[in-house]
Amino acid sequence: MNFLNEVTARFPDAVSFAPGRPYDEPFDPSVVAGYLDAYAKYLERDRGLSQRQVGGLLFQYGRTKGQIHELVAATVANDEGIEVSPESIVVTVGAQEGMLLALRALFRDSADVLLVASPCYVGITGAARLLDIAVEPVPEGPSGVDAAAVGAAAARVRASGRRPRALYAVPDFANPSGTSMPEGARRELLATAVEEDLYVLEDNPYGLFSRTGARTPTLKQLDEHRRTIYLGSFAKTCFPGARVGYAIADQPVVGPDGGVTLLADQLSKIKSMTTVNTSPLAQAAIGGMLVTYGCRLRALNEERIRRYRERLVALLAALRRHFGDDGAVSWNVPDGGFFLVVSLPFVADEAALTRSARDHGVLWTPMSYFYAGAGGERQIRLSCSYLEVAEIDDGVRRLREFTRAHR
Amino acid sequence: MNFLNEVTARFPDAVSFAPGRPYDEPFDPSVVAGYLDAYAKYLERDRGLSQRQVGGLLFQYGRTKGQIHELVAATVANDEGIEVSPESIVVTVGAQEGMLLALRALFRDSADVLLVASPCYVGITGAARLLDIAVEPVPEGPSGVDAAAVGAAAARVRASGRRPRALYAVPDFANPSGTSMPEGARRELLATAVEEDLYVLEDNPYGLFSRTGARTPTLKQLDEHRRTIYLGSFAKTCFPGARVGYAIADQPVVGPDGGVTLLADQLSKIKSMTTVNTSPLAQAAIGGMLVTYGCRLRALNEERIRRYRERLVALLAALRRHFGDDGAVSWNVPDGGFFLVVSLPFVADEAALTRSARDHGVLWTPMSYFYAGAGGERQIRLSCSYLEVAEIDDGVRRLREFTRAHR
Repeated sequence: MNFLNEVTARFPDAVSFAPGRPYDEPFDPSVVAGYLDAYAKYLERDRGLSQRQVGGLLFQYGRTKGQIHELVAATVANDEGIEVSPESIVVTVGAQEGMLLALRALFRDSADVLLVASPCYVGITGAARLLDIAVEPVPEGPSGVDAAAVGAAAARVRASGRRPRALYAVPDFANPSGTSMPEGARRELLATAVEEDLYVLEDNPYGLFSRTGARTPTLKQLDEHRRTIYLGSFAKTCFPGARVGYAIADQPVVGPDGGVTLLADQLSKIKSMTTVNTSPLAQAAIGGMLVTYGCRLRALNEERIRRYRERLVALLAALRRHFGDDGAVSWNVPDGGFFLVVSLPFVADEAALTRSARDHGVLWTPMSYFYAGAGGERQIRLSCSYLEVAEIDDGVRRLREFTRAHR
Repeated sequence: MNFLNEVTARFPDAVSFAPGRPYDEPFDPSVVAGYLDAYAKYLERDRGLSQRQVGGLLFQYGRTKGQIHELVAATVANDEGIEVSPESIVVTVGAQEGMLLALRALFRDSADVLLVASPCYVGITGAARLLDIAVEPVPEGPSGVDAAAVGAAAARVRASGRRPRALYAVPDFANPSGTSMPEGARRELLATAVEEDLYVLEDNPYGLFSRTGARTPTLKQLDEHRRTIYLGSFAKTCFPGARVGYAIADQPVVGPDGGVTLLADQLSKIKSMTTVNTSPLAQAAIGGMLVTYGCRLRALNEERIRRYRERLVALLAALRRHFGDDGAVSWNVPDGGFFLVVSLPFVADEAALTRSARDHGVLWTPMSYFYAGAGGERQIRLSCSYLEVAEIDDGVRRLREFTRAHR
């Protein structure tokens, strides 16, 4: 990704479909102060804490598992129908730390292998690399990760004398592909996880941002066998600058003293060695947002859901407008999220990206960045989350000029 | 430490010398809002950023290396005489993440061994365990880590066919022992680091809190050969709830493309796999505190320096008062910080701690917790940071009763 950052810096006036981050909001410090205050009032009124205790919860070291776990439990119950004990939640420094903790807890030795959807978000492969965990790609289809492909990957791993231990997947509006898994595919995947004795790391940063308004149950909600560890993030639904996410790990496990505990407690123990606790101040800001909206992220995000839908619809319309007559260029039509993939009739590598930026003023991400080995050479990821609707059509027009000149 | 937490919960009325955390301050959300505002104004006035850019810096994803690096560089120059480029600083989720990043960057394979002062802060041994890094203890003397002991430990490691790679030390008012290294010992240690080709991880959370007012230069300031990676924390000097620390890693290293980069850049790359970035909101709160006090933590902490001095002086006075006639009990006299060690004429284990809490209403930390192997069986750590001065004398009186009853 360094190259992408460099080329972005070199061509600051280019329209950029590269960044997957939320659009900038006019968010000023007083808004945060209001949320901190809302959280403090909740602690005083609803939880009966003294002012001194409230100060301690905001400004001191905190509980390693986190301190807004009860609010998070209420929120996932309201929004996702996920019913878990607050004790099964670990509040993390973004979903990234959740991935690291889950991998460190689940993977026992070098024979344990992580299956990942391919193409794949680089955060999970990075966390695996940090821990020297081997990764086996599972080719993604138009409906995301397919149970049969997971079974085949697990068989390959076993044939090599190793053990498939867990699968990482983003079932809703995946980054980078934009694909989603239908409910039937999710049920099949969970059945395969049971058969293959796999844990599933379900990462769901974009699930709220449906284009169609339809909602498919999460793996965690459908899971009757507790195979799923759910990784949540408030980066897109509250704000990224808090760096607050969470892992739901309600699996019973045998602790070091032989007693039964929760996998969440093992994650917490590991967290004491990575970051000790997630910033209580940042948790308080998120907690304040949650209590203000009755622990309902859909309510909190009404405006954002509308805006992201508008952007994705605009991107799809612009692609039809500028590429509708070009049989050599195609793209998928995601049901939501920030991303889609365009297939081009030529190799879309860093040299092509440089020409696209320099000669046509448009930036995108080579899909090859998201493959561990070969793959995605003639594909690009377009993200519409950070662009204004007005910029999107112009950007796609530039992309059209680039693809014409480049052939 | 779980046992300690449990016994603390069982005896909430006991006077506790166990927690090493800062005392509670009457800190309310509006104070934080003021600091966020101070940081925003600094960005607008001194750095010429637009309101939209300021919003992006507080609420969006941030730079992986951190965004208050220039303020941190100014602060360590003002307070510690450490002159480094802001680019050599990585802002971390507390010093704990700094340890993890440094170990992951420096340690290449299972033959690399970490030397640690013994007794030792559990955070570093935890980070080493997370990464499966072997640890070799270096027995601490009354003046902290001794260069000869480091040389001997390095020789033991080499004799076992492995390589000593780095040493972890807290030269100022160490946790748990309270010891400090005189300037001469620091110079000798740095010379040994050069001879033995060792990096030194200098952790300095308490350096500001001198009892005597005297200040010994940090290893980083004395280091002419860039052997030292300096780990800083704002937990004690600003507030723990931000979870903001930093690592200074100004060592030139050869990057993957053969070019020379800074060790800080390697740490940053690893950080992209652990937490992506340190909460920009939390960084803004700390940044606001720094700009408000002209990047001078001594000025910011005048009141805290006075209060911690008062507590340590009170603890030493109480020990003299209640144990001055007891030749079987002794303690060290730290020059500052939060901790000291009391040696007792009996084994101070968890059973003893339970009796101390239950029968005499006083809690402490067994020193054996801070040894990897045997050690500290007849010693306890007393922390005075979290207690009011008025509680300290009563706590030591209770301790006296416990030691009498227990013999």
